[in-house]
Amino acid sequence: MKKKVSLKDIAEIVGVSTATISYVLSKGEENRVSPKMAAKIKKVAKELNYQPNQIAKSLKSGRTFTIGLIVADISNPFFANIARIIEDEAKKRDYTVIFGSSDESEDKSRDLIRFLSNRQVDGFIIAPTEKSIDQIEQLKAQNIPFVLIDRYFPELETSYVVINNYQAAYDAVSRLIDTGHSSIGVISYSQGLFHMRERVRGYKRAVLDHGLNFKKTWMKEVSYANAKKEVEAAIDQLVSKRKEVSALFFATNTLAVHGLKHIDRLKLKVPDDVGVVCFDQGEAFDFYYCPLTYVKQPLVELGTAAVNILIDQISRKNKGYSRTSLEAELIVRDSCTRLEKHMDV
Amino acid sequence: MKKKVSLKDIAEIVGVSTATISYVLSKGEENRVSPKMAAKIKKVAKELNYQPNQIAKSLKSGRTFTIGLIVADISNPFFANIARIIEDEAKKRDYTVIFGSSDESEDKSRDLIRFLSNRQVDGFIIAPTEKSIDQIEQLKAQNIPFVLIDRYFPELETSYVVINNYQAAYDAVSRLIDTGHSSIGVISYSQGLFHMRERVRGYKRAVLDHGLNFKKTWMKEVSYANAKKEVEAAIDQLVSKRKEVSALFFATNTLAVHGLKHIDRLKLKVPDDVGVVCFDQGEAFDFYYCPLTYVKQPLVELGTAAVNILIDQISRKNKGYSRTSLEAELIVRDSCTRLEKHMDV
Repeated sequence: MKKKVSLKDIAEIVGVSTATISYVLSKGEENRVSPKMAAKIKKVAKELNYQPNQIAKSLKSGRTFTIGLIVADISNPFFANIARIIEDEAKKRDYTVIFGSSDESEDKSRDLIRFLSNRQVDGFIIAPTEKSIDQIEQLKAQNIPFVLIDRYFPELETSYVVINNYQAAYDAVSRLIDTGHSSIGVISYSQGLFHMRERVRGYKRAVLDHGLNFKKTWMKEVSYANAKKEVEAAIDQLVSKRKEVSALFFATNTLAVHGLKHIDRLKLKVPDDVGVVCFDQGEAFDFYYCPLTYVKQPLVELGTAAVNILIDQISRKNKGYSRTSLEAELIVRDSCTRLEKHMDV
Repeated sequence: MKKKVSLKDIAEIVGVSTATISYVLSKGEENRVSPKMAAKIKKVAKELNYQPNQIAKSLKSGRTFTIGLIVADISNPFFANIARIIEDEAKKRDYTVIFGSSDESEDKSRDLIRFLSNRQVDGFIIAPTEKSIDQIEQLKAQNIPFVLIDRYFPELETSYVVINNYQAAYDAVSRLIDTGHSSIGVISYSQGLFHMRERVRGYKRAVLDHGLNFKKTWMKEVSYANAKKEVEAAIDQLVSKRKEVSALFFATNTLAVHGLKHIDRLKLKVPDDVGVVCFDQGEAFDFYYCPLTYVKQPLVELGTAAVNILIDQISRKNKGYSRTSLEAELIVRDSCTRLEKHMDV
């Protein structure tokens, strides 16, 4: 391996001591030399392609300037977009991002936290899986900085950045009701996840506040591992076989993708046969024949807030917990206008 | 911060020397103690939640067990899927993945390589941008292990994992011709990127081999930064205004997404008004009314090969260059059957 350029090499060329070079290039104490000398040192360092040794720097500072990002699945567009935003924001603050996908498994999540901790990440941004509260408690006990994103545990004091899922769901379902639907089903992931529970709570409240009712059988919870089949079964039961409901609220983009594909296979038409609102925009929906009404999450705000809160914690600028709840926006389009259209007639 | 559990803490509990603990937990020299003692030490380490200090380990081994992954954009589904595959494969071999997005900019790419090098990644997996050949040459000169993915520089000896883009494009365009199209346009990114040049070369060869011709104006190159507008202009010219071509070959999934949205806005029908083949499947196409004929890249093989070649290089198991070119598969569906249908009549 080609020998790396050292501070000594630069010192020899510039004709000053290694200590002087170190003030400028390693210690951030540039004011101890003249501006002219500082400029000269930086120029030579650049010409020689000098690379500071981050490991040595880390040992001194106790920091690695690395964030561990744990999401459910980096290939899911929601998390891929968040990851891109977190990457950009972290870069601005000189941090790199290591990522891992938990597949909503508590075991994988535990394994990842341990794995990334061993890499001495300075802190974590985590979309916590169901039943991972003990893992999060352990991070707290170890005083490792972290921010939860997308979901959190209300019973545990932590920093988090989430959206107001209750309100977003309430608005989405209210919209369905306003357009004339009186029997509405909801398809969500397991309500062990707090954000899912909130979305279903918003659904229920909206239905009751409008003087309508729901049946327990209209609230379908599917498992992450077997989502596709279970979404299909739910639609078969709620819409296709018995027409129990006239509209569906999908609690995530992936659930909506599975659902709409099945609705298409059944030759049901949106919004004429079934009204639809869903969470999150997806590229997948761009070509859907009926533009969907959806809850638009403020992804940029979510990602940048998470990075900045975390880095402030790492730098001890922020000693307390930071809790951020952002409002989402309902984008109203054609997928829930059936009855409104009828009313226009 | 809670004091971390040290080897000494474990030694005191087990009642042996710190050196003995170190054989088992740090040095991988477990055979120097009895199997029973090794098991006991591991049990206590687990109970105390002992975390080896990766920085110290890194200083000893000179490795960080971290891979730097540089793609064009982690939020692009093609790269998000590759990233997930690379993550899973790296994890199997005890490596973490740091990622960065170059946005196809040579400056951002240079910056990222420097940034991740400073984090002492053990090696890189890079989808190189146009004009980044000097950056790749520098990595070579510095003996930093790396594998190029998706694209490579034929004039530079490096390890790479790519697909046979020429053949894949040849097959896709041949399919259009076989179904009766004789005037075919191609929309690609700048041909400064080798994989783009190969895809266009495959297009040309297929057209000529079938005794047809093309015009230079049928080969549209768009810039990464302004792709949407330029794709729209290309379609306006080739299909909408003058009907110069009866079919289009889109050289990437993002170009196809832009193109199909514009084709829809123009109220043109696929395949009746314009035949289409494209590169890569995308979730975005799942709801397109006309199932698309597309080139299916072997993503799992691409990602796993890249990780394994890189780690073998890092471990010095592989001293030469490893060049892997995989074949893609053409998935034939309805978007290029127009004239075939007509011929059936």
